[in-house]
Amino acid sequence: MSQYDITIIGGDGIGPEVTREAFKVADAACEVFGFQLKKNELPIGSQYFLDHGDPFPDAMFEEARQGDAIFLGAIGDPRCEPGKVEYGIIAKCRFDLDLYVNLRPVKLLQESLCPLKGKGPADIDMLIVRENTEGAYTGMHGFAHKGQPLEVATQTMVYTREGVERAIRYAFHLAETRERQPGKEAQVTLVDKANAVRAHDLWQRTFYEVAKEHPNIKTDHAYIDAACMWMVKNPEWFDVAVTPNLFGDIITDLGAMIQGGMGMAASGNIHPGKVSLFEPIHGSAPKHAGKNVASPIAAAMAVGMMFDYLGEKKAAQAVDKAIADLFADGRLKGASTGTHPTNEVGDMIAAEIRKN
Amino acid sequence: MSQYDITIIGGDGIGPEVTREAFKVADAACEVFGFQLKKNELPIGSQYFLDHGDPFPDAMFEEARQGDAIFLGAIGDPRCEPGKVEYGIIAKCRFDLDLYVNLRPVKLLQESLCPLKGKGPADIDMLIVRENTEGAYTGMHGFAHKGQPLEVATQTMVYTREGVERAIRYAFHLAETRERQPGKEAQVTLVDKANAVRAHDLWQRTFYEVAKEHPNIKTDHAYIDAACMWMVKNPEWFDVAVTPNLFGDIITDLGAMIQGGMGMAASGNIHPGKVSLFEPIHGSAPKHAGKNVASPIAAAMAVGMMFDYLGEKKAAQAVDKAIADLFADGRLKGASTGTHPTNEVGDMIAAEIRKN
Ligand SMILES: CC(C)[C@H](C(=O)O)[C@@H](O)C(=O)O
Ligand SMILES: CC(C)[C@H](C(=O)O)[C@@H](O)C(=O)O
Repeated sequence: MSQYDITIIGGDGIGPEVTREAFKVADAACEVFGFQLKKNELPIGSQYFLDHGDPFPDAMFEEARQGDAIFLGAIGDPRCEPGKVEYGIIAKCRFDLDLYVNLRPVKLLQESLCPLKGKGPADIDMLIVRENTEGAYTGMHGFAHKGQPLEVATQTMVYTREGVERAIRYAFHLAETRERQPGKEAQVTLVDKANAVRAHDLWQRTFYEVAKEHPNIKTDHAYIDAACMWMVKNPEWFDVAVTPNLFGDIITDLGAMIQGGMGMAASGNIHPGKVSLFEPIHGSAPKHAGKNVASPIAAAMAVGMMFDYLGEKKAAQAVDKAIADLFADGRLKGASTGTHPTNEVGDMIAAEIRKN
Repeated sequence: MSQYDITIIGGDGIGPEVTREAFKVADAACEVFGFQLKKNELPIGSQYFLDHGDPFPDAMFEEARQGDAIFLGAIGDPRCEPGKVEYGIIAKCRFDLDLYVNLRPVKLLQESLCPLKGKGPADIDMLIVRENTEGAYTGMHGFAHKGQPLEVATQTMVYTREGVERAIRYAFHLAETRERQPGKEAQVTLVDKANAVRAHDLWQRTFYEVAKEHPNIKTDHAYIDAACMWMVKNPEWFDVAVTPNLFGDIITDLGAMIQGGMGMAASGNIHPGKVSLFEPIHGSAPKHAGKNVASPIAAAMAVGMMFDYLGEKKAAQAVDKAIADLFADGRLKGASTGTHPTNEVGDMIAAEIRKN
């Protein structure tokens, strides 16, 4: 029987409770499809940081690196400096494990979940590939005259040919292999801001070079400002999109919105062939923590993505299908805070999977 | 009789035709409210650049600088390198005239224009203040090993205390003075990404310092990713928002979308007390040029903003009211390409103004 080493970081706020539900779902799939998870739960998060002064001790990080996958609930706590613990855990994994793709599927399950008029499941079904290790996230920033009237603050976006190319290649690979709605064409859309951020010229050159190797895949291009408009007005124009780190952060949140909210959005931080990290996109929502009101659907979807990555395709499909079926017959009504008690959602999805 | 020196740049694509309609509207307001425009039409744009190799000759720029305001139709042509002429004209004005505020009102006139479910005019009425002279737009970029496998491309976002502060002060000033829907509170929302772009710490510190001088104005904060979600899910949470240049570019396009599309969105590039530039937010849409299908409503709204800036408040209100009334009684049905012939829209708005 296959066994996978999974590092679990529940984290802050609603993170631990959605993680608990996600692993009810995972355990059901393991039983049904015959594989095992060896779980290593790490106690890290903002409280741990406040107590110990280290967001992610080296020894724990090395344990996580040795595993097959990492599952993360959520990180973020108003008691800590903005970004401090997020960077110490999420960004540390992204950078130190070189998780260069942040894959965020945007799929609308039901028209009623969509905040847009006149858009249905046939219109909203895309994969967004966010480059995950470069751009505005490299930490290259500084201050001159800090706190003085002459203060200057800078932050440098950095792109490398190889860093850009591997993200773009991943996007084309997805476009070659993904399942899509009947009648929809394979397409990769580059989203950049080359007309103002001239460094994005590297993105444009690399994109069209890689595209030449895939003559069967259509290409499209949008500046980030236009891409945000398309997400709202013409989401059906997207199949696979690829974009630098910061823009990926932005359009994937917008993508989450049009598929029914942050409660419906999962992501994989991936280095193909190596340990990778799966997480719901939502944050820690401290004010909803411990009240059994957070939706664990996104966390369950992240488990589905993790199974897909581990090669447990049937289990992955079963997770997705369970959630889709529960929405289709109205047992699940939404993924907003308070729509369903947190613990009941995990039970429902797990029970649905056990029907397989 | 007051007279204003207006520089007019029709520009590329649909720019000249929407500009022509906008000045039908302007002329009507001049007649009715008793002031004059001295128009100086500049022939610049991408064709001029292709013919002469200079997007904006110095002598013309100096003429524009001496005037009271600049009106710009649209710039952008696929025959030119991305950003080249946009930078040579739009960005040149923004930087060399130090137009440090890009003001973009987002106001929904009618529920039917909104792509979002369940949102009406009471929910969508905000002013976005985009810092317009710093951040990712300063042009500080470079390439190492260009075209080689080792290529590195960088672009630096630059913020200064004074640059940030003056934009934030402008936002608080608007919050103090703007008209708003009954029952709505005065509020300024800072939109940044300080948890990843740590240079935005300067934005946070400056924002809360300026806020202390305005104890009667509520403050709010959103990271750019969350702000994009709010625009779609809870646009009613915004009153005045202030944000760095690149994020302003992004959320104002999203704002345009929720108020009915790019055809409804105007902006002012402003240096209070000095020559300032007014433009529709939309681009040059080359494929629609010359077909009499582009909507000139945004261009007409930009004329309204220009009049407001010049102190012709009655004329400004009359432009806005004419457009609102035409929508209210169904004579205007939308601002999408092809909804109305371009020339008829200008005539309708001008005729409405002449009823004053
Ligand atoms: C917490 C934050 C630093 C992070 C990001 O910006 O990447 C988050 O928004 C995300 O999208 O995973
Ligand atoms: C044309 C482009 C450089 C410009 C910008 O990014 O500022 C445009 O999108 C705008 O919003 O005025």
